[in-house]
Amino acid sequence: MMLKNIDCGKLSKENVGQTVVLNGWVQGWRDFGGILFIDLRDRSGIVQVVFNPEFSGKALELGSRARNEYVLAVKGKIVERDPVTFNPNLATGEIEVQVEEVEIINAAKTPPFPIEDGVEVDESLRLKYRYLDLRRPEMQKTLLLRSKATKIFRDFLDDNGFIDVETPILTKSTPEGARDYLVPSRVHPGEFFALPQSPQLFKQLLMVGGIERYYQVARCFRDEDLRADRQPEFTQIDIETSFLSQDQLLGMMEQLMARLFRETVGVEIPTPFQRLTYSDAIHKYGSDKPDLRFGLEIEDVTDIVKSSEVKVFASVAASGGVVKALNAKGCASWSRKELDDLQPFAARYGGKGIAWITVKDGEWKGPIVKFFSPEEKAALTERLNVEEGDLLTFSADKLKTAADVMGNLRQKVGRDLGLIDNKAYKFLWVVDFPLLGWDEEGKRFVAEHHPFTRPTDEDLPLFDTDPGAIRAQAYDIVLNGYEVGGGSMRIYRRDVQEKMFQALGFSAEEAQEKFGFFLDAFEYGTPPHGGIAFGLDRLIMLLAGRTNLRETIAFPKTASATDLLCDAPSPVTERQLDDLHVRLSAKAIAAQTKTAPAVADSVESGEPAVQSQG
Amino acid sequence: MMLKNIDCGKLSKENVGQTVVLNGWVQGWRDFGGILFIDLRDRSGIVQVVFNPEFSGKALELGSRARNEYVLAVKGKIVERDPVTFNPNLATGEIEVQVEEVEIINAAKTPPFPIEDGVEVDESLRLKYRYLDLRRPEMQKTLLLRSKATKIFRDFLDDNGFIDVETPILTKSTPEGARDYLVPSRVHPGEFFALPQSPQLFKQLLMVGGIERYYQVARCFRDEDLRADRQPEFTQIDIETSFLSQDQLLGMMEQLMARLFRETVGVEIPTPFQRLTYSDAIHKYGSDKPDLRFGLEIEDVTDIVKSSEVKVFASVAASGGVVKALNAKGCASWSRKELDDLQPFAARYGGKGIAWITVKDGEWKGPIVKFFSPEEKAALTERLNVEEGDLLTFSADKLKTAADVMGNLRQKVGRDLGLIDNKAYKFLWVVDFPLLGWDEEGKRFVAEHHPFTRPTDEDLPLFDTDPGAIRAQAYDIVLNGYEVGGGSMRIYRRDVQEKMFQALGFSAEEAQEKFGFFLDAFEYGTPPHGGIAFGLDRLIMLLAGRTNLRETIAFPKTASATDLLCDAPSPVTERQLDDLHVRLSAKAIAAQTKTAPAVADSVESGEPAVQSQG
Repeated sequence: MMLKNIDCGKLSKENVGQTVVLNGWVQGWRDFGGILFIDLRDRSGIVQVVFNPEFSGKALELGSRARNEYVLAVKGKIVERDPVTFNPNLATGEIEVQVEEVEIINAAKTPPFPIEDGVEVDESLRLKYRYLDLRRPEMQKTLLLRSKATKIFRDFLDDNGFIDVETPILTKSTPEGARDYLVPSRVHPGEFFALPQSPQLFKQLLMVGGIERYYQVARCFRDEDLRADRQPEFTQIDIETSFLSQDQLLGMMEQLMARLFRETVGVEIPTPFQRLTYSDAIHKYGSDKPDLRFGLEIEDVTDIVKSSEVKVFASVAASGGVVKALNAKGCASWSRKELDDLQPFAARYGGKGIAWITVKDGEWKGPIVKFFSPEEKAALTERLNVEEGDLLTFSADKLKTAADVMGNLRQKVGRDLGLIDNKAYKFLWVVDFPLLGWDEEGKRFVAEHHPFTRPTDEDLPLFDTDPGAIRAQAYDIVLNGYEVGGGSMRIYRRDVQEKMFQALGFSAEEAQEKFGFFLDAFEYGTPPHGGIAFGLDRLIMLLAGRTNLRETIAFPKTASATDLLCDAPSPVTERQLDDLHVRLSAKAIAAQTKTAPAVADSVESGEPAVQSQG
Repeated sequence: MMLKNIDCGKLSKENVGQTVVLNGWVQGWRDFGGILFIDLRDRSGIVQVVFNPEFSGKALELGSRARNEYVLAVKGKIVERDPVTFNPNLATGEIEVQVEEVEIINAAKTPPFPIEDGVEVDESLRLKYRYLDLRRPEMQKTLLLRSKATKIFRDFLDDNGFIDVETPILTKSTPEGARDYLVPSRVHPGEFFALPQSPQLFKQLLMVGGIERYYQVARCFRDEDLRADRQPEFTQIDIETSFLSQDQLLGMMEQLMARLFRETVGVEIPTPFQRLTYSDAIHKYGSDKPDLRFGLEIEDVTDIVKSSEVKVFASVAASGGVVKALNAKGCASWSRKELDDLQPFAARYGGKGIAWITVKDGEWKGPIVKFFSPEEKAALTERLNVEEGDLLTFSADKLKTAADVMGNLRQKVGRDLGLIDNKAYKFLWVVDFPLLGWDEEGKRFVAEHHPFTRPTDEDLPLFDTDPGAIRAQAYDIVLNGYEVGGGSMRIYRRDVQEKMFQALGFSAEEAQEKFGFFLDAFEYGTPPHGGIAFGLDRLIMLLAGRTNLRETIAFPKTASATDLLCDAPSPVTERQLDDLHVRLSAKAIAAQTKTAPAVADSVESGEPAVQSQG
């Protein structure tokens, strides 16, 4: 077999005169008056190879048998093309290869979809034939970007004294939020491993273990109902440090992001990043992950409208709610239908409605205008910077709901008005998250982040007076409206931890039962520590300019957590279940009678049980 | 809090005069006439900090409360020690820190074992308190080495155009050898994911997908009964390439190993590595992973002794067996007990015994000597290079057994005679493995490596005449008697694959049923490809000079696949099992009645389900 000595896409005029061997796939072919032109593609790109009776001899006949996606080896001479045949769409478009020898390494059936970018293909077909989908330049580019970005993360962290430590995948089920994936133990009947939702406990234990700076490109698992931007297994760049302040850590992470963006997309990200408190983010942008590529701030007008004759405003204000307003600049021209659609829009986010006022021809119009006094109108004009052509919108509700409605409206208006620069990367830290949230159902406080999150020093006294007001040393990193990472400083002092458990309503015994070995570890000289984790899939999605996490993953799962390529999950044999001491539930048996086991039980002796088999 | 501005272990005479802030753990302390000396340790090393009423003021009183493993912050001035107090055992032994301020960041209970190297501690205690064990310099050094080695792998592969691609952990159970770990699906009742035994199918599909060069530091899982050098989850450096010959791939991997050893242990590994065929390895060294740090080759003496009057030699030879001999140079002095112990030694490896002859005072002695003719003795003398003081040993059996007995005896003799240079790294490729092995029980051929391993081109005709004699394009990389990696070139042609399945006794339908989606992929233009995987845990073990894989893993499992630190596996709640549509078997329920579930079901609302939470 002739094996390549150079990549197709790397050929240029500098190679003219050389004889090369190429290997690749047939991207396309055409016969032009007895001369055969084949576009040969490998990972690096495409080059035109030419079969001509003049120099190809019997290679022409063999080459003529090739069809799309055949694998070829060709040997030939690089020549400059006649300038009139230059192909400006091809990086190698100024040269071509005069074929002297050809070998058909492998044939191919006609693929179920064309191997090129920009074709409309049903995604489930793409996933089933992922190995063909991966041949498309767009997918190759994304996987290459992912590999490169991961390397930059690693290099930066390595340069800064971080140690890459692998933590277990087979670990313990913990009472920590999302649903665990479980793995039955064969050796210990009735016991289960859990796949980690994150290496949280292990990375903190590494700090107790004196590692000081840890990172890992960590696979994490959550058995949740999936949304478009979730995968059952996902990758996070997991980071933990000892002896750094929050400011030091955040500053270091800004340098990391700057390097990542510089070395992948060639964009200079200015540092330091803007910081917003959680409270400001909610009040001004109606979101804890606001998209700051555009302005359009939300205003609080409760003080102005609380005594107005708009009944709902007055009553909401009186019952501790807020009235939030957004001036949709220039949207007075919205149609009646667009204005009517504001009601279902609000409902989608739990709101009761959105009141509106248009400003046209110097006049305020809309159902609520008549209820405002001239003073109120003047105050609103100033607060909302009202001008001709504006659309004023209002949401009156509990803060959380009003913020959510207005935040989403802000995003919609920003998009509709074309305010968003799609080339911009706008980073932001959201800080000072609340430590505790009030669980209405359970009538108790719950940890907003997790029970080991450190409160701000100033707020420690509030444990005794107003736990709900305590701010956490927790932070999210937001990019263009996406949360791309988050973390916190951790509690490292026993007395603070006890106050935290008290606030969560745990007795010392309950705390020990729930977090036993972890709390024990904290008795032996725990350093102050904290960390962060970046969502790699989502970062790559944003870097690659895609809108779907699945585009960033070589072999992703569907929204129903299915791998369409290898058909997982799938039934297993009785013997496998017996080994693991589990049986199917009645429901599962009923489901299984519809599908026969796809896995035979007989081929178990073939592969030697060697751990490092390639 | 005072946070460190320099690491303890990095201080030297160059810092004299500087005022620094250090953070670390108390390694030890002593009060010497009212002056307090504390050895302060962080990841980088240890430095002596001194509390003296002259310059420490009230810090002395606070510092005096510190005990071992307390976490301190100290601020002080670096001074040169009086030369008579230089501590040559400490890298920082020429300086000390005059403490001006101290802060007790955290207290510590007395650890269950001393935090230092070379102490005898029960391993299960070390594993239970792994976070303390990890503070020992030896463990920190090993984890640092592992991180560094992994980085070198990545850098090398990156430099050579490999793309790091993550493949799924939640995948499909396949009929491929070892037992799978299974994960019940919540969304698909009665169906299961399997954790990958290796990314074998995915990496081959990436080649079909045109990635050309792939690598991954991949977590793999095998639910097997564990031996000392196995872990249920282990890490392999997984590599696959298209369009490379076996020689090209092996040569590249030699460069990779050379760089790894140069940049970690500073040893130059000569390339190319020695290559041995599987057959030669078995015949000459009695092992497919021989330790070539010493000679002591095994000889085949069947031809010499087959007509001798040693009945067992003659009869074994007549029935197709072999007589293997090892000259244990200088071992004629073995005691009678040592010679007698050869019988149980042989039995351990399935042998019936080891015949022996001592050569003392010019005379051959031993039970079988009298049965040899002078001609036979002369031939043996020449073949085995017999000299005064030698011990000749013989095993007569089927090749596999005789080789195994003699191979292990060779290793023992090499060790006993001190022939092994513990500082040497002796690499070796074992090549030309058999493609198929005969399964006596099933009376059929099975794949020695896996069913996609490519036969050597020359042996293809043997499919029709002598399938058992076909050699595979499979290779193992052996270091000092350990297999540290292995792989193969893969079948990429449909006709060869069909011949392989025929040889394995599969009908086309069976093949499709067992390997369906994978075979489909091969219809669309599969490039010639092959790969290798290195066992990272074992390589690190050898690089670190350890003898136990657990020493190379931050949080390893015991031989019964238990994590003693976090107590995994463990019981889970009924509700978790219900969600997954499985129930415990009667045996598991019986086992569970002895232990109450350790996991409460109530704390599920705390953690927001954010994938990138830190």
